[in-house]
Amino acid sequence: MLKVKTPNEVWTLIKQKFAPLSGGEYVPSFLAAGRVLAEDICAAEYVPDFDRSTVDGYAVRAKDTFGCSDSMPAILTRVGAVEMGQEVRIQVSEDECAAVPTGGEVPREADAVAMIEYTEDYGDGTVGILKAVSPGTNMIYRGDDVKPGKVVLKKGRQLKPQDIGALAAMGIVQVFVKKKLKVAIISTGDELIPAEEKPGSGQIRDVNSDLLRAAVEAAGAQPACMGIIKDKEKLLADALERALNTCDMVLISGGSSVGTKDATCRVIEEKGEILFHGIAMKPGKPTILGCVDSKPVVGLPGHPAAAFFVMQLFVVPLMDRLTGQERRQFPVKAILEENVGANHGRAQYMGVWLRREGGKVFARPIRSKSGLITSLAGSEGYFCIDRDCEGIAAGTEVDVYLYG
Amino acid sequence: MLKVKTPNEVWTLIKQKFAPLSGGEYVPSFLAAGRVLAEDICAAEYVPDFDRSTVDGYAVRAKDTFGCSDSMPAILTRVGAVEMGQEVRIQVSEDECAAVPTGGEVPREADAVAMIEYTEDYGDGTVGILKAVSPGTNMIYRGDDVKPGKVVLKKGRQLKPQDIGALAAMGIVQVFVKKKLKVAIISTGDELIPAEEKPGSGQIRDVNSDLLRAAVEAAGAQPACMGIIKDKEKLLADALERALNTCDMVLISGGSSVGTKDATCRVIEEKGEILFHGIAMKPGKPTILGCVDSKPVVGLPGHPAAAFFVMQLFVVPLMDRLTGQERRQFPVKAILEENVGANHGRAQYMGVWLRREGGKVFARPIRSKSGLITSLAGSEGYFCIDRDCEGIAAGTEVDVYLYG
Repeated sequence: MLKVKTPNEVWTLIKQKFAPLSGGEYVPSFLAAGRVLAEDICAAEYVPDFDRSTVDGYAVRAKDTFGCSDSMPAILTRVGAVEMGQEVRIQVSEDECAAVPTGGEVPREADAVAMIEYTEDYGDGTVGILKAVSPGTNMIYRGDDVKPGKVVLKKGRQLKPQDIGALAAMGIVQVFVKKKLKVAIISTGDELIPAEEKPGSGQIRDVNSDLLRAAVEAAGAQPACMGIIKDKEKLLADALERALNTCDMVLISGGSSVGTKDATCRVIEEKGEILFHGIAMKPGKPTILGCVDSKPVVGLPGHPAAAFFVMQLFVVPLMDRLTGQERRQFPVKAILEENVGANHGRAQYMGVWLRREGGKVFARPIRSKSGLITSLAGSEGYFCIDRDCEGIAAGTEVDVYLYG
Repeated sequence: MLKVKTPNEVWTLIKQKFAPLSGGEYVPSFLAAGRVLAEDICAAEYVPDFDRSTVDGYAVRAKDTFGCSDSMPAILTRVGAVEMGQEVRIQVSEDECAAVPTGGEVPREADAVAMIEYTEDYGDGTVGILKAVSPGTNMIYRGDDVKPGKVVLKKGRQLKPQDIGALAAMGIVQVFVKKKLKVAIISTGDELIPAEEKPGSGQIRDVNSDLLRAAVEAAGAQPACMGIIKDKEKLLADALERALNTCDMVLISGGSSVGTKDATCRVIEEKGEILFHGIAMKPGKPTILGCVDSKPVVGLPGHPAAAFFVMQLFVVPLMDRLTGQERRQFPVKAILEENVGANHGRAQYMGVWLRREGGKVFARPIRSKSGLITSLAGSEGYFCIDRDCEGIAAGTEVDVYLYG
């Protein structure tokens, strides 16, 4: 019997045993949201590529405005108007100004923009500036945002909409991203029937195929559901073989009874090695991690709530390890609404319902006895009761992790 | 000139002027993640549908075990073994027991399960129970999780992987969801060129088409990019007409110069009405909301960072209003790493970079001068400086909202 691991030992082991998959593919940037960058993104140009006004107003030479005021405007000659998207041919010399719209190019000789609100057009070709500006006022200089060579997005970043915008700004219209992971999903158990069938005596519906498929997709990978496999070692071995032929990792869920757990272990050992069997956590203790052909094979608990927690806590980090993704998770501080009890030396994870009231977030723990649907449906996240904690009192602030 | 609205006034107005779209469509539940429920989901069956053991052990009549101990086991006759997925025909009478696996059906006459760890199989057809159990121990009763009639998921919920699992558990293999919103995206501005072209003098790349497309998709809707429209009122009016023919709402971005802003207003007014022009916030002040043929038409600022904030703060809630979605957002508490200044009577939104250290989350504000790419790329969320706040000191805890 292999030693049960703590959650921290599992995360360490994942990093030791599995390395990011090499290679990647080019995709159009505008379709790359959710994909993981396989290279750093470096700016190749100045953004913006010219000095721009940040307001509607008049481009001026700042020193021509020094000392002016409402009662003593600086009177400048209007030598033209900058047009959006046009090359600027206007020259602004001493005591001259040029109208410029927000985002428009500031003529080279000008060094500041006076906001239109602080100017007066006298209609005779001259403009009064009512408030002095210093050099650089209301301007963005060429390259102020990004200069060539700057690393704007790092390898391992899962691209978000805001990053897609940044890529467009730099004119980077295709990006090199990691291929989507293919994750095989196998449900095992003689008691399982497809979700669309009506259970007979002693039968239950296969929840994990649909649950894990959705969770794998939400994590950015491509699920491959292999269906329900009966508790026969040969059938499971064949299914694992097929899964390994086409996928980057395999999730086998079910087999919560002793015999089936052993079958999962044996088929993994036959083809590769077991890295551990059992995590010191609740729920999720009977988790198995193996390695076959350098690919991870995970044995998940059959109980859907437990399988889902293990998915969130270990399978997603394992997937991230394979894509090299730096996923960043930030907990929500929430006030626990009920006391929760001790947990006998194992880290315990509890789902919660969250609600906001008066600027605060409250978490109601979902009790695990009636665990199946209620601990999943409509819930938002979970918190952890540490292994050496005797319980947490109502009113305590806890770190709630939202489901990915 | 219409009065500038506060953010709260805008949210109220959105609810007053726009109602959820009626109707919906059936989709297979396993493909429904991310979709918005158009009806409450009610359980129609008991889950589980039979009394189940939560451990590997022996189904017993609890009273037969009362008073037993390690040194004085209760000796019961083993009358069989429950098999997974099979109808249970075993009867457990007085002083009898039946082996039962985790998740297996507990025979009707039994009322508790003794864990295998606290039993001893004597090999002669009898089993010793070493620890007493009370009725209900290690069991889940029929319907403990869900009983027929219970509302498990509410209309308006955006389905998450955990909800998909719950639907499978209940045998609900198709769900009635809202149709995906179609959102038209129009970029305006004579200075704009497509992202794949090299800007000439005074030209900049169209960032908002790609940015808004990705943000619309991330919010669960279907984007329809109409391309770049030059600053001609007729061209914009035609594009708006085409957009309204096929889409549920229209986003027009750009037009940060006075003339263009006016053009957007005029084309909306020509076909419908302007609800407001200007929000008392920074960035995002020049936002326009109109209503044409009962459909919302939003004029977004041309500056990508500003357009993105307005998208997060007002467009996503507007989309949610149309689908009837109850989106729930929970802020992350983060410690501000730098002082941020006053904001002259307008709510100010600032993007942040987040990092975790020692169980705490720290937020570094992204200064807005060099606003374009750097305030978007790689950032995680934003916080708000209230309109009557003079600034926030480094070290203060702020509520950071992660980008959706």
